Amino acid sequence: MSKRIAGPEIERLIQLLAKVPGLGPRSARRAALHLIKKKEQLLAPLSVAMADAVDKVRVCSTCGNVDTSDPCTICTDERRDRSLLIVVEDVSDLWALERSGAMNARYHVLGGTLSPLDGVGPDDLTIAKLVSRVAEGEVKEVILAVNATVEGQTTAHYITDQLSGLGARVTRLAHGVPVGGELDYLDEGTIAAALKSRTAF
Amino acid sequence: MSKRIAGPEIERLIQLLAKVPGLGPRSARRAALHLIKKKEQLLAPLSVAMADAVDKVRVCSTCGNVDTSDPCTICTDERRDRSLLIVVEDVSDLWALERSGAMNARYHVLGGTLSPLDGVGPDDLTIAKLVSRVAEGEVKEVILAVNATVEGQTTAHYITDQLSGLGARVTRLAHGVPVGGELDYLDEGTIAAALKSRTAF
Repeated sequence: MSKRIAGPEIERLIQLLAKVPGLGPRSARRAALHLIKKKEQLLAPLSVAMADAVDKVRVCSTCGNVDTSDPCTICTDERRDRSLLIVVEDVSDLWALERSGAMNARYHVLGGTLSPLDGVGPDDLTIAKLVSRVAEGEVKEVILAVNATVEGQTTAHYITDQLSGLGARVTRLAHGVPVGGELDYLDEGTIAAALKSRTAF
Repeated sequence: MSKRIAGPEIERLIQLLAKVPGLGPRSARRAALHLIKKKEQLLAPLSVAMADAVDKVRVCSTCGNVDTSDPCTICTDERRDRSLLIVVEDVSDLWALERSGAMNARYHVLGGTLSPLDGVGPDDLTIAKLVSRVAEGEVKEVILAVNATVEGQTTAHYITDQLSGLGARVTRLAHGVPVGGELDYLDEGTIAAALKSRTAF
């Protein structure tokens, strides 16, 4: 703002909100005003929820998920199949897989992908911990649910090498046409992969 | 989420973030994860800034602006021209006018527009307070900076009636081509208004 029109508290709130992904400088102002107008219904509960998260959220020392308990809710869930381990790049991928509700497995969050150009090597990811989890013998199948990018696939190959000889089957997600997707909008690589992996109708 | 995958604190944070304008359920999850990852740099300061705002932000009893002091920073600013009063619908309009830096005036926030269909009458807005501010005699010009909507214009006419006889000139914002705007994309009403109010080149 060109001149000082409000106390520093409001400007600080706007500045910090502008750093939240999905909000820019303009929408941060709109958000701040909305929060101030809904002080009791939204701003106060949100500030408490954030303070709570600051106090209580930690990274699970087993799988790398974020939760308020360590080991996390998923790692300690007795109803999950302990022979299945799904490897993901990031906690957001773990959440996406959980939303699908397709598997009742446990997870391992890598914390990124191998990327020599960005200086990310195996030691920057949780690969050593993954190997020692699998070496314990309980895991029978490791599903590599990394992104279908060059870095993701490079990481998948590296992990497969590291896990060889530990007795666990290593699998990866199928490539194909997204459910609800239109062929016209798909790239050639996906169409070729879907044709190659075609199934009986 | 289909099943419980994290402590209730994270889910509550996502639920509340989803109510912030500009964020939906999907971007709220992304924002929550980003905030949790940047716990010390962003989540903690934001929770403090919000708690601060809850404690300190109030509505200015003179003009209706939101600020941490009452009367607000603008109302108590001695360098502002006390003969000029700009009437706006909402605090967001006040902020927009201040960003333009074009006027060094004080403001009066109506809190909305007259809208009989929605049950908003003169008593639901701060019109009576506006009239008494102008009646004090210090204000020589009232600039009606209400939106160029039907409700805004109706409200402007009503206010003009209420202020008649108090000795202050009542003006409104000019209609015309937005700076940087292309004629091709403008509606006929705006073009007609810009032609009618054409100025010497």
